[in-house]
Amino acid sequence: MENFTYWVPTKVYFGKDTHKQVGTVIKEYGFSKIMIHYGGGSVQKTGLLDQVTQSLRDSGIEYVLFGGVRPNPVLSLAKEGMDLCRREKVEFILAVGGGSVIDSAKCIADGVLNPDMDPWKFFTKEAVPEKALPHGNILTLAASGSETSQSCVITNEDGGWKKGFNSPTHRPLFAICNPELTFTVNRFQTGCGTVDIMMHTLERYLGGKGKNTPLTDRIGEDLLKTVMEAGAVADKKPEDYEARASLMWAGSLSHNDLTGLGRAYVMQVHQLEHELSGMFPSVAHGAGLSALFCTWARYVYRWDVPRFAQLAVRVFHVDMDFENPEATALEGIRRLEAFFESLSMPVRLSQLDAGIKKEDGAVLAEKCSQGGTRVLEGIYLLGKKEMEQIYLLAY
Amino acid sequence: MENFTYWVPTKVYFGKDTHKQVGTVIKEYGFSKIMIHYGGGSVQKTGLLDQVTQSLRDSGIEYVLFGGVRPNPVLSLAKEGMDLCRREKVEFILAVGGGSVIDSAKCIADGVLNPDMDPWKFFTKEAVPEKALPHGNILTLAASGSETSQSCVITNEDGGWKKGFNSPTHRPLFAICNPELTFTVNRFQTGCGTVDIMMHTLERYLGGKGKNTPLTDRIGEDLLKTVMEAGAVADKKPEDYEARASLMWAGSLSHNDLTGLGRAYVMQVHQLEHELSGMFPSVAHGAGLSALFCTWARYVYRWDVPRFAQLAVRVFHVDMDFENPEATALEGIRRLEAFFESLSMPVRLSQLDAGIKKEDGAVLAEKCSQGGTRVLEGIYLLGKKEMEQIYLLAY
Repeated sequence: MENFTYWVPTKVYFGKDTHKQVGTVIKEYGFSKIMIHYGGGSVQKTGLLDQVTQSLRDSGIEYVLFGGVRPNPVLSLAKEGMDLCRREKVEFILAVGGGSVIDSAKCIADGVLNPDMDPWKFFTKEAVPEKALPHGNILTLAASGSETSQSCVITNEDGGWKKGFNSPTHRPLFAICNPELTFTVNRFQTGCGTVDIMMHTLERYLGGKGKNTPLTDRIGEDLLKTVMEAGAVADKKPEDYEARASLMWAGSLSHNDLTGLGRAYVMQVHQLEHELSGMFPSVAHGAGLSALFCTWARYVYRWDVPRFAQLAVRVFHVDMDFENPEATALEGIRRLEAFFESLSMPVRLSQLDAGIKKEDGAVLAEKCSQGGTRVLEGIYLLGKKEMEQIYLLAY
Repeated sequence: MENFTYWVPTKVYFGKDTHKQVGTVIKEYGFSKIMIHYGGGSVQKTGLLDQVTQSLRDSGIEYVLFGGVRPNPVLSLAKEGMDLCRREKVEFILAVGGGSVIDSAKCIADGVLNPDMDPWKFFTKEAVPEKALPHGNILTLAASGSETSQSCVITNEDGGWKKGFNSPTHRPLFAICNPELTFTVNRFQTGCGTVDIMMHTLERYLGGKGKNTPLTDRIGEDLLKTVMEAGAVADKKPEDYEARASLMWAGSLSHNDLTGLGRAYVMQVHQLEHELSGMFPSVAHGAGLSALFCTWARYVYRWDVPRFAQLAVRVFHVDMDFENPEATALEGIRRLEAFFESLSMPVRLSQLDAGIKKEDGAVLAEKCSQGGTRVLEGIYLLGKKEMEQIYLLAY
């Protein structure tokens, strides 16, 4: 087991009707003026925004509204949010939405208290935010885990770059997680969420060489089994509370670091996917991951056959082929692919309805490798050449 | 799944040599004067205390020393600690030790900032500590989980009462967990720790009626399997780093609430054991739990056979007897008992070398039921009569 630091200070309020207490929760922290950050019309259509503002008014908390976040949230909107927060002397940002809204709120929070810094420099790792405005969220989509994670991913339209970075300033003060708020998530987005949740654990589980982490491994395996069961139910019965609840709680645990503790890993597929949806913003993150993952797995598995076989046996109930562990490993990947297909998720880039051409693989690899200067560590080193091969094989 | 709130803000520094950074860690929080709280001579003998004070001096942090905590920590010592903290204007308490030292530190922390309150009233639930001195710890024993939990258990020598209560003020700021510091823990204490860690999950897993918590259940089952494997190794090879590391991390997760989320449960065996070691302070908590648990399990299992059968199949690898699930459930309890015995842990009260007599069961039940006025909920209600039966059957 490698040394690790684990710090997840976010307070989680989980369950039915929990969003109705948001005013009380924020008041306990002593904030009197906040910004509500959200996406398009769905929080208005469902009445959620009204319930939130009612709860805030009941607790005597002033608020300004700032909507407009789209999937693959952009830096330009976040910069507008920073200006608004400064102008309105906002003390706290409440994100109401899924990972895109929460990430946009985190980006704004970092920027507000660092007015002399170009916020993109945090993403290019030229600077580090030492402080940020506090923030919290009401979650409406089980997927990114951003509600308790330290990550934040933003697209800079200037160049089509999509980048993320981790920071303690990204840990929300609280996350209000009511599974009922995800009943209206459509079949495609539910599938994307299921994939994204699985990926956060799969990449930790497969993306490194750490040994002797039996508890971390098992928690990861059980999270995957639970998400596959619940994802299959939610796919057919969108208003099944227990399935939505399992997805939502697994979504938080999958990306709060718990499923990678003691392992050194690199999330290679996330890096490959960020270039994809950075260049083709209509690609949903979960769909991009689904389109790339099994190709990546078949490309790298031979450098850690025991690990892929363990996944196949413990998660996909493949009978171990003791004379041919490679066959077991490959059968696990096949069953994972079949699961994605059962949710109608794409398993090839050409299935993404985004105008991607086969020759775009070279451009994507050029960007992902930063012109051939960056290699991604993991169980097998990915340089520019290997990245391009994966993009091509995945087409 | 029941609604829940989950908040574990303690920052965990886990792994080799982590205790040597304690000065830097405390300095980051801005404290300049602290109290080091510890037990008997072992932290001095092993040189740990010297390493800690050296690290503090290197970071320019002033400290006062306050040792003397024993297993089943007592209120009178904690009160001395409160006086010392006030007199010396201490800003932070660093516990260096196991659960007894950490609990004593938590009790002191609550008391220091509530000088007009009899601190025992927090334990009798006549009062609630609204504030407390901040505290953190360097863990030397994998057992109680107190290093990240919200619980605190103290014995009041005046009447031989042992009581605990949960409070947000009990969450440490940080926990420094170096498994190497547990290499010197002897075989008996290692066994007690293994039992205690298992109990924190077993009581959550078996002690309630919650349904539809697949992820919580599985994490609990994983934790039990991992602790049994690691406990068996540490029993034979006390300096096996990986086994000690698995025990230590499992110890924190087992009592930080993760393994009970979404379930309503009552830790009946902990309540029965607190009376036991309250009245017979030479009984180690883990040994008391071990002596009571399987009798309790055989007393209550028939009110939730499916749950006990699930435990037997998933954790103890019992083949399910579909025609007779009760047999499966009982076989699981038998294997648990055999595991305790393999660690030379007691499985009957008469095996505890503490002068307990069979007729003490009536007195213990009288105390645990508060003169017959308290019943313990769970899968089967325990009143005074049932408690006495369990104490007698466990003799």
